[in-house]
Amino acid sequence: MAGREHPETERASLIETVDEEELYGPSEELLENVSAALSAGDVPLVETLIEPLHPADVADLIEHLEPDQRKLFLDITRHALEPETISHLDESLRDEVVDQMAPAELAGVVTELDTDDAVDLLEDLDDATQREVLANLPAEDRAYIQQGLTFPEDSAGRLMQRELVALPGQWNVGEAIDHLRAAADLPDDFYDLYVLDAEEKPMGSVPLSRVLRSKRDTRLGEIMDGELRLVRADTDQEAVAYLFRQYGLMSAPVVDDAGRLIGVITVDDVVRVIDEEAEEDLLNIVGVGDTDFHAPAWETAFQRVRWLVVTLINTLVAAFVISRFEDTIGHYPALAVLMPITAAMGGNAGVQVITVTVRALATREITPSSRVGRIILKELLVGLMNAVVFAAILGTVGGFWFGNAALGIVLGSAMVFNMIWAGFAGTAIPIVMDRLGLDPAIGAGPFLTTTTDCLGFFAFLGLATLFLT
Amino acid sequence: MAGREHPETERASLIETVDEEELYGPSEELLENVSAALSAGDVPLVETLIEPLHPADVADLIEHLEPDQRKLFLDITRHALEPETISHLDESLRDEVVDQMAPAELAGVVTELDTDDAVDLLEDLDDATQREVLANLPAEDRAYIQQGLTFPEDSAGRLMQRELVALPGQWNVGEAIDHLRAAADLPDDFYDLYVLDAEEKPMGSVPLSRVLRSKRDTRLGEIMDGELRLVRADTDQEAVAYLFRQYGLMSAPVVDDAGRLIGVITVDDVVRVIDEEAEEDLLNIVGVGDTDFHAPAWETAFQRVRWLVVTLINTLVAAFVISRFEDTIGHYPALAVLMPITAAMGGNAGVQVITVTVRALATREITPSSRVGRIILKELLVGLMNAVVFAAILGTVGGFWFGNAALGIVLGSAMVFNMIWAGFAGTAIPIVMDRLGLDPAIGAGPFLTTTTDCLGFFAFLGLATLFLT
Repeated sequence: MAGREHPETERASLIETVDEEELYGPSEELLENVSAALSAGDVPLVETLIEPLHPADVADLIEHLEPDQRKLFLDITRHALEPETISHLDESLRDEVVDQMAPAELAGVVTELDTDDAVDLLEDLDDATQREVLANLPAEDRAYIQQGLTFPEDSAGRLMQRELVALPGQWNVGEAIDHLRAAADLPDDFYDLYVLDAEEKPMGSVPLSRVLRSKRDTRLGEIMDGELRLVRADTDQEAVAYLFRQYGLMSAPVVDDAGRLIGVITVDDVVRVIDEEAEEDLLNIVGVGDTDFHAPAWETAFQRVRWLVVTLINTLVAAFVISRFEDTIGHYPALAVLMPITAAMGGNAGVQVITVTVRALATREITPSSRVGRIILKELLVGLMNAVVFAAILGTVGGFWFGNAALGIVLGSAMVFNMIWAGFAGTAIPIVMDRLGLDPAIGAGPFLTTTTDCLGFFAFLGLATLFLT
Repeated sequence: MAGREHPETERASLIETVDEEELYGPSEELLENVSAALSAGDVPLVETLIEPLHPADVADLIEHLEPDQRKLFLDITRHALEPETISHLDESLRDEVVDQMAPAELAGVVTELDTDDAVDLLEDLDDATQREVLANLPAEDRAYIQQGLTFPEDSAGRLMQRELVALPGQWNVGEAIDHLRAAADLPDDFYDLYVLDAEEKPMGSVPLSRVLRSKRDTRLGEIMDGELRLVRADTDQEAVAYLFRQYGLMSAPVVDDAGRLIGVITVDDVVRVIDEEAEEDLLNIVGVGDTDFHAPAWETAFQRVRWLVVTLINTLVAAFVISRFEDTIGHYPALAVLMPITAAMGGNAGVQVITVTVRALATREITPSSRVGRIILKELLVGLMNAVVFAAILGTVGGFWFGNAALGIVLGSAMVFNMIWAGFAGTAIPIVMDRLGLDPAIGAGPFLTTTTDCLGFFAFLGLATLFLT
């Protein structure tokens, strides 16, 4: 797990200017050539074709193959796949590959990875296989990975790697460089040196560029950044991502309960987290939940059921509201024609507000110390302005369409009412959910549209019953 | 712009373990203390309170103040604000601060920033002010920034900083370290050394950790990564973000048309881009467009008009469809009660599919070489499975509610039809838009719901007209 050569250096040198057209995923040509070689059973050709590729690109290639070709590809190349390639695969494919490997083989792969990637690979295995793989590992790796598995999912402990460089503060730059040249158990890549006090607690960090710019006799304690934010292993990954973004960090030290340095989180892992968190927000708002592009159809269908159930309840409640006005509609079917307008405008305005609010909560533009009244007031104003404009347009259209000015006024009034409600509820619901410790991205959207549907139908049909019949 | 001390080192040392409860934004206590000091006009107290804060936290504090207090705060501290604090402010607030500064003062701020942040600060100024600020800059900074401003917005050229370290490949590690110790015009922080050939074209890069681990007489050419992806200055920032994510980069070299190295993009800037792009997708799907939390209400109202206009057209088309069935509804008002169900279930199922597809396009899980047929087929299956389940439930409810089995069957059939359409259109529309070079996040959602609304109403009311009357 430590001291091995950087895998990239094993590939031939490659200098290319990035072409946006060909940047994303495997080219059609490569995909066809690999397919043809697989069909022909030409193993050496397959190996030649993937040899110049970066592990991340090999993983993409595997994901793009047809299922039967993919199986063939993995059968052929499994023993030659770089550990990084397996790490880069999408979760469901990775599990597929890992399931097919013998524990001893898997242990070989795990040894090549940083602790965080190794834990990723092992966390979904059943207990028996996990134990067998661990038994095949060197003692130090085993201890690190076992500890890694004890941290909660999505915590700093899972993101961190154990490999790091920590030195005493009284050492000078020359001693540090001499040590780095001689030491065997260093991480592949590192970006900061950590400076420890006598009790092994971190006192500061020195970016490598500063080490390189300082004279040999400079003490590390003199050039270190004394501003150090220590992350506990059980800290949520969302908080870690915030730290990196807010303070432009390259790496962050992780400490145990006694304050001793036990690992380091690097920015490349955080980039993945930021991506994941943004995706989660997006998918939760539309009720998709965790998605895995390569999961089978029945699994995907099941994942989407949640919001559809909410929609089902929503529409039944809305249908019940409408049913109270069945007589009015029977006398005046034009109401059925115009009825969806109020609900749709309120619903869409509300989804806009809720999305902006959920995002502002996620990016911490709204925090516990924000003045909530001012935020809601602004959205009420926004709702009012757009409501008045669109109510005037649609009220006029509706009035002329059915030659009935009163109908137009009823439509417009119901819309103003519903859009202002959307502005209020779209801000207030997620903020209240957040304060209650709930995730505002989950369920706030469906809940809001239930209210705008019901209120929209009720306001329009109710006003119509009062003033038109 | 170069060679200055790292600003963090000017603050007192601070070692703290991160507390998730208090991590996000300024604490209520700090906000209250600053407010009180501002109201009392106690300038030294305000300065003492913000002195230990990181520039990013000062920016957050400013954003959280009430507008009048914010003005007061900026009046008091403007001359003492660190350039980084101004860089960290939200766009509308940054413009506010920058507008109040004299060109000479602004030039002082700009000199302290890396070129990418400096360009950010200057890009929105009117031409006359921009010229005046530039005239106040040292010649080299001016040239860099002027060139930076010529690159398109959201391009690699805007993201890159000019400050970088590039050395000849025949130098050895010892010479490199000696040079770094002596040179004055180095960037604040750097993570890779670039190795140049005789024509100043990049041949490879060496991570600093590898420099530190190699003996003094090792030639840079021997330890460099020869796998180098060069980014042209006009490359879109989305492509840059993809590169960093895909290959786990810390920095990437930017070249001009002749292939000469002109700048470097570092991962901290890319983290910002990844965040921005994810936000853009999310907000575009709900038609909000660019959002700025601190923009005035009328501006926000205007930004949201687009999707509301689409909704307006959408609902009018749907209303037109319903109006064709006015007579049927007049005879049978129960149809008006159940009518929204088909449309809502189809619309929500469609929004789920479209969100997943837009996201898969954004994260390049769907690429030009993907087998589109297979992707659409899967979504058709997902649609069919959920459609059958929910059609059975809602059809039964509808049938019992109105004591009419035929009505239930009509409702269920219309739903199956509409949800399968949602699965097909939800995948096909964004993929086709993407192939046509359009941004699938913009407009695909509204377009889809127009079709599911109209088809939902049409299928349900049409079947009802055929079989129930």
